[in-house]
Amino acid sequence: MTTHEVPPVSDLPSLDPDVDVAALRTLLDGRHREVRDLVRSNLAEHAGILEDAEVLDRAAYRERVRDVVVTMAGTGQTGMGFPAAYGGGGDLGASIAAFETLAYGDLSVLVKVGVQFGLFGGAILQLGTKHHHDAYLADLVAGRTMGCFAMTESGHGSNVQALGTVASYDVEAQEFVITTPDDASRKDYIGNAAAHAELAVVFAQLEVGGERHGVHAFVVPVRDGDRVLDGVRVEDDGPKMGLNGVDNGRLWFDGVRVPRTALLNQFAEVTPEGRYLSPIDNPNRRFFTMLGTLVQGRVCVGGAGINAAKVALTIAVRYADRRRQFEASATGEEQVLLDYGMHQRRLLPLLARTYALHAAQEVVAGQLHDVFSGPGPVEDGADEHARRMLESRAAGTKALGTWHATRTIQECREACGGAGYLSENRFAALKADTDVFTTFEGDNHVLLQLVAKGLLTDYAGAFEDMDQLGMARFVAGVAVDTVVERTSGHKLVQSVRDLLPGGDSWDQEAGLLDPNYQLAMLRFREEHMIAGVARRLKRGIDQGDDPGVVFSRVQDHVIAAARAHTERLVLEAFVAQVRAVTDDDLKATLGLLCDLHALSTIEADRAWFMEHGRLSSARSKAISREVGALCRRVRPLAVDLVDAFGVPDEVLRSPDLLGWTDAGPVR
Amino acid sequence: MTTHEVPPVSDLPSLDPDVDVAALRTLLDGRHREVRDLVRSNLAEHAGILEDAEVLDRAAYRERVRDVVVTMAGTGQTGMGFPAAYGGGGDLGASIAAFETLAYGDLSVLVKVGVQFGLFGGAILQLGTKHHHDAYLADLVAGRTMGCFAMTESGHGSNVQALGTVASYDVEAQEFVITTPDDASRKDYIGNAAAHAELAVVFAQLEVGGERHGVHAFVVPVRDGDRVLDGVRVEDDGPKMGLNGVDNGRLWFDGVRVPRTALLNQFAEVTPEGRYLSPIDNPNRRFFTMLGTLVQGRVCVGGAGINAAKVALTIAVRYADRRRQFEASATGEEQVLLDYGMHQRRLLPLLARTYALHAAQEVVAGQLHDVFSGPGPVEDGADEHARRMLESRAAGTKALGTWHATRTIQECREACGGAGYLSENRFAALKADTDVFTTFEGDNHVLLQLVAKGLLTDYAGAFEDMDQLGMARFVAGVAVDTVVERTSGHKLVQSVRDLLPGGDSWDQEAGLLDPNYQLAMLRFREEHMIAGVARRLKRGIDQGDDPGVVFSRVQDHVIAAARAHTERLVLEAFVAQVRAVTDDDLKATLGLLCDLHALSTIEADRAWFMEHGRLSSARSKAISREVGALCRRVRPLAVDLVDAFGVPDEVLRSPDLLGWTDAGPVR
Repeated sequence: MTTHEVPPVSDLPSLDPDVDVAALRTLLDGRHREVRDLVRSNLAEHAGILEDAEVLDRAAYRERVRDVVVTMAGTGQTGMGFPAAYGGGGDLGASIAAFETLAYGDLSVLVKVGVQFGLFGGAILQLGTKHHHDAYLADLVAGRTMGCFAMTESGHGSNVQALGTVASYDVEAQEFVITTPDDASRKDYIGNAAAHAELAVVFAQLEVGGERHGVHAFVVPVRDGDRVLDGVRVEDDGPKMGLNGVDNGRLWFDGVRVPRTALLNQFAEVTPEGRYLSPIDNPNRRFFTMLGTLVQGRVCVGGAGINAAKVALTIAVRYADRRRQFEASATGEEQVLLDYGMHQRRLLPLLARTYALHAAQEVVAGQLHDVFSGPGPVEDGADEHARRMLESRAAGTKALGTWHATRTIQECREACGGAGYLSENRFAALKADTDVFTTFEGDNHVLLQLVAKGLLTDYAGAFEDMDQLGMARFVAGVAVDTVVERTSGHKLVQSVRDLLPGGDSWDQEAGLLDPNYQLAMLRFREEHMIAGVARRLKRGIDQGDDPGVVFSRVQDHVIAAARAHTERLVLEAFVAQVRAVTDDDLKATLGLLCDLHALSTIEADRAWFMEHGRLSSARSKAISREVGALCRRVRPLAVDLVDAFGVPDEVLRSPDLLGWTDAGPVR
Repeated sequence: MTTHEVPPVSDLPSLDPDVDVAALRTLLDGRHREVRDLVRSNLAEHAGILEDAEVLDRAAYRERVRDVVVTMAGTGQTGMGFPAAYGGGGDLGASIAAFETLAYGDLSVLVKVGVQFGLFGGAILQLGTKHHHDAYLADLVAGRTMGCFAMTESGHGSNVQALGTVASYDVEAQEFVITTPDDASRKDYIGNAAAHAELAVVFAQLEVGGERHGVHAFVVPVRDGDRVLDGVRVEDDGPKMGLNGVDNGRLWFDGVRVPRTALLNQFAEVTPEGRYLSPIDNPNRRFFTMLGTLVQGRVCVGGAGINAAKVALTIAVRYADRRRQFEASATGEEQVLLDYGMHQRRLLPLLARTYALHAAQEVVAGQLHDVFSGPGPVEDGADEHARRMLESRAAGTKALGTWHATRTIQECREACGGAGYLSENRFAALKADTDVFTTFEGDNHVLLQLVAKGLLTDYAGAFEDMDQLGMARFVAGVAVDTVVERTSGHKLVQSVRDLLPGGDSWDQEAGLLDPNYQLAMLRFREEHMIAGVARRLKRGIDQGDDPGVVFSRVQDHVIAAARAHTERLVLEAFVAQVRAVTDDDLKATLGLLCDLHALSTIEADRAWFMEHGRLSSARSKAISREVGALCRRVRPLAVDLVDAFGVPDEVLRSPDLLGWTDAGPVR
């Protein structure tokens, strides 16, 4: 590769903007500002629970969390997503915004809200019909009836299609009989199951007249008050790394009988005489359509991860702006941590990425609102396409958002030194509570495989409903030829040219701070990776290898392609947000963050770009220098940028880190 | 760069070795096998504390930990490093081995042992003289007297030279008066301070006749039984992220008087009439010599981090070898996790790196033993050189070992899915307890700066005793010219040629599995980075920039150079270990792991190697393929490789993950 002229590091301090914190916060809060402020004030009011979490024993903490959840339900905050007829707010978007904001506070409260209103309530709403809505929604929205979502089994985590619990239809009694055949099929990690749930939505293999119809959901009473009902066995999951205010447990069913109407029958029905009916013929498609209605949970968890990262950054950045350590100049005064280059490098790209993910989250939450608030029956093709796109985006954003939370909280903890280790400084609970976000609502790696599957089927121009084995087999099918043909040789080059506005070597000449350049880089990577996955899958199959072995070998490439795809969506969302801003200072502020995010994303994978001829070594080094320069430009804005997140002072705690006085933390 | 022929991915299944687990464990245990087995059986006996940690309240857990520590002290396990005359084992190497192995169990026990015998006992032993040894050692070795190590202050963490506590000499009374002048100078995070310590080794600014002589250590009684002594104020640090069995606290001293002999006077003395005497004239050098005797703590924490990672890997690898998830071949059976390429990629390079760090830890522990068991007074130049080398190696190994622990435990937790989140499966405590390892005994970034300082001074051929400002100023001094001269232009090329056995382009032709190639790559990176740091420092100073600003800009480069240096030491240690093995199977086994470690280390920084002309893009991709191939070859050995760590079954717990039966975990 020829070494092209490398643009100099940008150094335009005169352009550095003033941050209007209130205006920026309004922008970030978006159209659901009102509900976000409601949650903020609820969080401030119940901030004491953060301290209670450290001193109460597990049983008492669980009761405290339940009380807070029910109290919050009374303010309308948690029911935003349900129809007004049942006491809800009728605004799904507001429901997501409320949930995300709740992540500023105690995360057991957040997760219990997610279990009760998102998973349990969401299943009744989305998988049930009017009969179920009338029976349950009003009580569950008010928090009068607590429920759980009994999907995961000990032996079957991410592979929901392989669940072992059985619901067989007894045509005589017109009842379903729910049975746990073995310990691998016990329901496990089920929130609300150990103590509070009176009802469970149980996912089980439906069996009618000896024939299996796949996984369906049933409403099963499990408790009357505190008494566990006959035929149900409950075991506490015991102490957990975090979220100990949520009562996770295990459930076994020993021939528990429920009426025929207990089947949540939005997508399938069993008639009294034992006929199975569904508007969706293909069992795989039916299964994924059912699961798809639960996409809301993934959108919520992704947003919660991003907002938990905001709490950590707020504390770490404000601390780094106050704390002095080591003399570093001749004045004899110790230097503020955030004036150290290394400290800037540790925190500021994470801050920029938080803004980027926030923008991406706004897009996916908006799409969720539109798709689920729209009319259109589910069989409608256009609607189904939109749903699939949404599911893919939600899966990718959830994976990136929750990994970001884990990484950011860890880095912020370390950046606060030993003090970060004390519980009163928030990181202990933040770390422990968010750790499982990467696993629940779908393991991140499994979710990214889902994204990749969508990308490959998109390429092939057909919708396929595949489990993982299906994906491996898929490579043997006709579809892959389309993928390979579309992406190989000439076509790929053509496609890359399409991505680069100024021709084939434009990417080596464009300014590093040109968003078109940044986007073209991420688009090229995505296209190239997807094509590569398709070719590798095909080659393996053509060689006659076992599809399982082929898939296993390509798996890291599959995951990387899905990640690259989602990174591109995130950057596009952020660039679009910046472009839409009209205020000069705000635009400049977000533009700086967008550049820092884009270039540090490219920097993180610069090896790949060099390996694939899209970066010279000189340009690669220039990108690293530019990231450093951007960090220095963001540094004076850093405290304003975290203040704009609007995390209430009451939930920040951290008296020593933030230098609290009687009037609040030192600003 | 020309694209050279890229060697094919190795594929030599016929060479795959059988692992003799017992023989491998003997090799890993090394010369201190006996004490490691003593600790293993002590851990098994007290394994119940792992469960107690989840159910006892904080106060009770602390007492339980204290009891276990004192009981273990009775077996001789914790006193290995003290002279036999005081009831110790007289074998420092054995002491390190015992401590490391203790990391398989409850980590509050580990840290309390570290506080009592390593920090408190080590300070009395290394900084005190016979008077102090006679007065305290026998009781502290037996656990009859508990003590604490009061160095860190709230306002002064890593920068010990800036401590605020004052010890001023009252010549009339022949006493030191210990005073905490302000809240920033309160002692903080001090283990054993909140409940158990009767004595404290207090680090304070020594003032004699109005003149300051820098930080010195004093033995100060703080409690009589449970009663806090007059003039001492104690505050509990409260709940922490982990290690809640250790009673960390804060201490204030209000004019507390101790006799003149309370000064630990190995390196400095105050005569009755108030004359200050020290065999080391330079105050900076005296300070660093004093601190240097505490290097043992860093060696111990590094080893503990590595061993904690072994526990996590043992659980995650065994689980991945049993757990089936998703059908991936036509057999209809779900595939074992560890047969997935992605899962191999997640766990096996971490396993290889654990072996590499183990080898490096053996080297640094051996050097510690030799340096501290040798004769030679501390002023001896040769001895001082060895100490400085040891300190640098200990600092680097501690940083890499503890970061490795954080990363490995996290990856293993995620690789065990939701089950990894339950406390009985060990990850909760492992994560929470080890998290502070990256901070204590020196923040990892600060430690790597220490390493870098040593590298630069080594280059300059002189020993400098520098604080951080000194380091920034250093670039303005004459020394840097030597560095730059030695490393710039012609000289650097020469030096690189020296590193590459077969001439300048040998690195582009050598086999990827040639250890000389792997080492040459890491050596080149190290040399190049150090030279680059020196040049950047000099350029900044030559431009007349403020040294603090210059340092801040170069800081990430400084840290990277120190990391590169330590990575090279780690690989050298592992290669040397492999070379020394005579048994064919063991040699082949370790050789595989060494290749996997070396290539995944190069792969992780392949961007840098491409940027600096040491990897073509084709060769870079070949390295990634080779890492994948090595993972597949290590996979069948993986369970044996973790079993060789010899983590006792009793401390693994994880009944569901490991499939325990009455006879123990399924193998």
